[in-house]
Order: sequence, then C-alpha cells, then structure tokens
Amino acid sequence: MGVTLEQAEKAVRAAKEKAQELNLKMNIAVVDAGANLVAFARMDGAWLGSVDIAIRKARTARFFDMPTGDLGQASQPGGSLYNIEHSNGGLITFPGGIPIKNGSGEIVGAIGVSGSTVENDHTVADAGVKALSS
Amino acid sequence: MGVTLEQAEKAVRAAKEKAQELNLKMNIAVVDAGANLVAFARMDGAWLGSVDIAIRKARTARFFDMPTGDLGQASQPGGSLYNIEHSNGGLITFPGGIPIKNGSGEIVGAIGVSGSTVENDHTVADAGVKALSS
Amino acid sequence: MGVTLEQAEKAVRAAKEKAQELNLKMNIAVVDAGANLVAFARMDGAWLGSVDIAIRKARTARFFDMPTGDLGQASQPGGSLYNIEHSNGGLITFPGGIPIKNGSGEIVGAIGVSGSTVENDHTVADAGVKALSS
Amino acid sequence: MGVTLEQAEKAVRAAKEKAQELNLKMNIAVVDAGANLVAFARMDGAWLGSVDIAIRKARTARFFDMPTGDLGQASQPGGSLYNIEHSNGGLITFPGGIPIKNGSGEIVGAIGVSGSTVENDHTVADAGVKALSS
Repeated sequence: MGVTLEQAEKAVRAAKEKAQELNLKMNIAVVDAGANLVAFARMDGAWLGSVDIAIRKARTARFFDMPTGDLGQASQPGGSLYNIEHSNGGLITFPGGIPIKNGSGEIVGAIGVSGSTVENDHTVADAGVKALSS
Repeated sequence: MGVTLEQAEKAVRAAKEKAQELNLKMNIAVVDAGANLVAFARMDGAWLGSVDIAIRKARTARFFDMPTGDLGQASQPGGSLYNIEHSNGGLITFPGGIPIKNGSGEIVGAIGVSGSTVENDHTVADAGVKALSS
Repeated sequence: MGVTLEQAEKAVRAAKEKAQELNLKMNIAVVDAGANLVAFARMDGAWLGSVDIAIRKARTARFFDMPTGDLGQASQPGGSLYNIEHSNGGLITFPGGIPIKNGSGEIVGAIGVSGSTVENDHTVADAGVKALSS
Repeated sequence: MGVTLEQAEKAVRAAKEKAQELNLKMNIAVVDAGANLVAFARMDGAWLGSVDIAIRKARTARFFDMPTGDLGQASQPGGSLYNIEHSNGGLITFPGGIPIKNGSGEIVGAIGVSGSTVENDHTVADAGVKALSS
C-alpha cells in the first residue's frame, strides 16, 4: 500500500524544516498508494482553509500520478481538461502536490502542501519528496 | 432501460482491446438509458482519479445525449452553458464520453473513458460504441 | 495495489453465475486494496439503488477488513459502533460485502453484492471470493 | 487556538506508543480549539475506514466538549439527542474521542482514535491526552 507511516512522517518533517527555513507556515499531508491519508501536520498559525487543500493536493497528485500544477495547466478555460476539478469530490490542481516514488520508480503515495504561494507550496512539497529519495 | 449487461460488457471489452492496442491504461464505464451504471473496468495501473471521471463522462453523455466534448465547448467562460459542470453533482465536459444508440438510432446508454489524453479517451470510447453498432 | 482487473472480473463472473443459478438479479462491485473500484456489473433488471450499495459494501468491507454484516452487528442501537454508517461518506453495514485475500492471507480488495435479501447478497459475494481462492 | 503542533505531535506520539504497547494499529487525529485538524497519523496496517472516523471523533469531542462516548449514550433511540450524528456533516459518538485541556482546565483541542474496539480506542486516546497533562 505504499509509503509507511515512518516514511510519511519523515517527509512531513523534511517539509516542515524547509518551511521553517523559508519562514512559512504550512499544512502538510501525505497519502499512500491508495490515496488514503497517512500523516498530516498543520504548523502553528498556518491557514485553516489549507488543511483541506493540502489533503486534496496530495490525493490529486496520486489520483493522476503527476504534480498537481501539471494538471492545472490543462484544466484552464479552453484547456483539454477544463473543470476537471469537479470530479472526485473536488480536486485541487494548482502546484503543491507531488507524487512520491520508491527506489524502483513506482509511485507509492503523494505529498500535498498548502499555506503560502503555490511556488512556495511546491518547494516545500518537493523537500518532503526529496527526503524519501535520498 | 437500454443496454443490457451483455452489451455493456461487450463495449467495455472492445474499449479495453483498443486501449491495449494503443498501449494505454484506461477506466471504462457504461451507463444505461437511465444514466445508471451497468458495467465498469479499471485496467491495471490506470489512474485512480479516472474511476470517477469515466463514470461521470458516461453519465454526462447520456444526460445531454451528446459527446461530452461537445458540451465542453459551450461551458467555457463566455459560453452559453458556462460552468454547467456544477450541476448534477458534478459533470465532466471534456472528450471521452459518447452516447450509445441502438439499431433504430435511439440512445440506449453511454460510455465514458478516462486515463490518457482526451483524444485517446475519445478514441477508446468510440471503439466501445462501434462494437455495439456493428 | 491488490486485485488485478483479471482477478476482479473473475470474481464478478463467478458471482454472476451464482446469482443466475439462484435466479437472482444482482449488482456486483470489486475494489482493490486501496478501496478503489476495479470492476462492476449490474445484471439486467437488478435494482438501480443497489449500484451504490454494492460499491459501498465493497468499500466498507475493505475499510474495516471484515464482512459488512459483522460491522452491522456492532452498529445497532446500544452497540459499540452505533451509527458508524455516518463516516466515510456513508457506509453500508448489512451483509453482502466480503474482503478478498491472496494466497498468503493478505487482504487485497473486497467484493460487494446487492440486489436481493442480505443472505442472498452474502452468498453471491462469497461465490466471488471463492473463485479467487481456488 | 489551543494546542500547538508540538503538543499535538506529542499526543500523537504517546498514543502511538500506547497502541504499540497493546499491539494495536490505530488512526490518531488531533484537532485544535477550533476543531480544525492539527496532526494525524495512520499506523501501518490500520483500518482505512478509521482515517475518517478518528478525525470525526476528535472533532465531535471538541464540538461538544465531552468524550464522544458520553454523547453516544444520549443519541440512542429514545435518547434526548437521538441521531445527533446527522449534524455537522456526520458525527461519531462512540468512544475514542476525548477533549484536551490546558493547565487551567480550558479545553484547547481534542484527540480521536480509531482502529480497534472502542475500549481500546478510548484507552489509546487517553494516553494521548495524559501526555499533555503531565
């Protein structure tokens, strides 16, 4: 079923450290290969509305095995996936969600981060992913 | 109420074979004339988020008796059906959903396919439709 | 991620044959280890309302790794899990959902059947499970 | 807004250790004074359906500032709060959710645990609460 709790907590911790380094307050969620929640942390003072967004970003990234921002480029007006966000009970398609792969390149889960600009969200999520690949 | 299970499974099988031929991993759904699910298959490794999208495409195609992509052209900003995706608990209006007709040209159901580009989704859905018209 | 489509379709087929043998019209759903839908079939004339119930039974059986009826005994008034049905977007806790195990005894998915008495639903689901263990 | 992430993670950790000591696999959630999620952990192999239940137990405990089991006694047929579970998008009213107080006795959040019998769920939740009061 993908990432273990130990791995998920390692990713959350790495994301948290990156957020602290950048002086950001983030919500961080990790789901497993079945897109079910494994670990979550909301840093003190982080946006309340980002609890749900972080979890949805993680789920969206695993639902389609790509960074959420990639999906968002195709879901714009006129894009091939316009309004895909209405599926699956609500997707989030801007950056901040990234699949997590194991050593063999298989996707074993995903991380979702929300609480700042989407660039920062992506950077912090990426720190979580990298903690598991090193 | 339209397509029988035997017909629905024939359409799913044909769509699956087309997907294999194109080396794609698809979610395939068939609904009947009442827009209720009759048959569904998720090919190994197909996107998890496409389970819901394939079903919604099939339902959307029967809800409005047209290919989902046609509806999507009118649901764009400024279009006559702008954001129609908010209705019916969530529609999907990009290609991949196609109505199924019987020999008399009556619509008896619809197929929805999701898992690749919308062009591929439509191609695979079309293979399912054709299997019932031949 | 548990059952393959080939296995899921084998389970659906076995359940369908058992239903035909008993002269029943069933909805049959199979989910994988992540509780995501893999295969579904509604037999001609089966209850429309059972589409959703069959899928929820399969999901509930995997959510708690036990037959749905076991959960239902504890969710009665005065029971230890009273009204657990309100979680997870709606559970179904009467018989008809059964976990599917692999040769090593690991749970790799679940089947849910709905369309007749709960005893018949369970019997037909069990035929699906047995098809994979033999 | 009540518990900090540091406190919430301390409670989760203590609950996890208690679960390991009892050889249980639990889902553990902590919410703050606003009933919004702060920290969550699903132990390897814990029920998937308990992700949602653990979070709902924590929220329910803070919504009404009492252990979830207390509420469940009044929500039975004939009870004064019959079917209160229908409110708030779905409550869970069996044991496993407990409010968290600060040194002054003010409620600053709640913990919810799900994955075993309700007695075990409550015991593990209580270990989380005690970790913050000592």
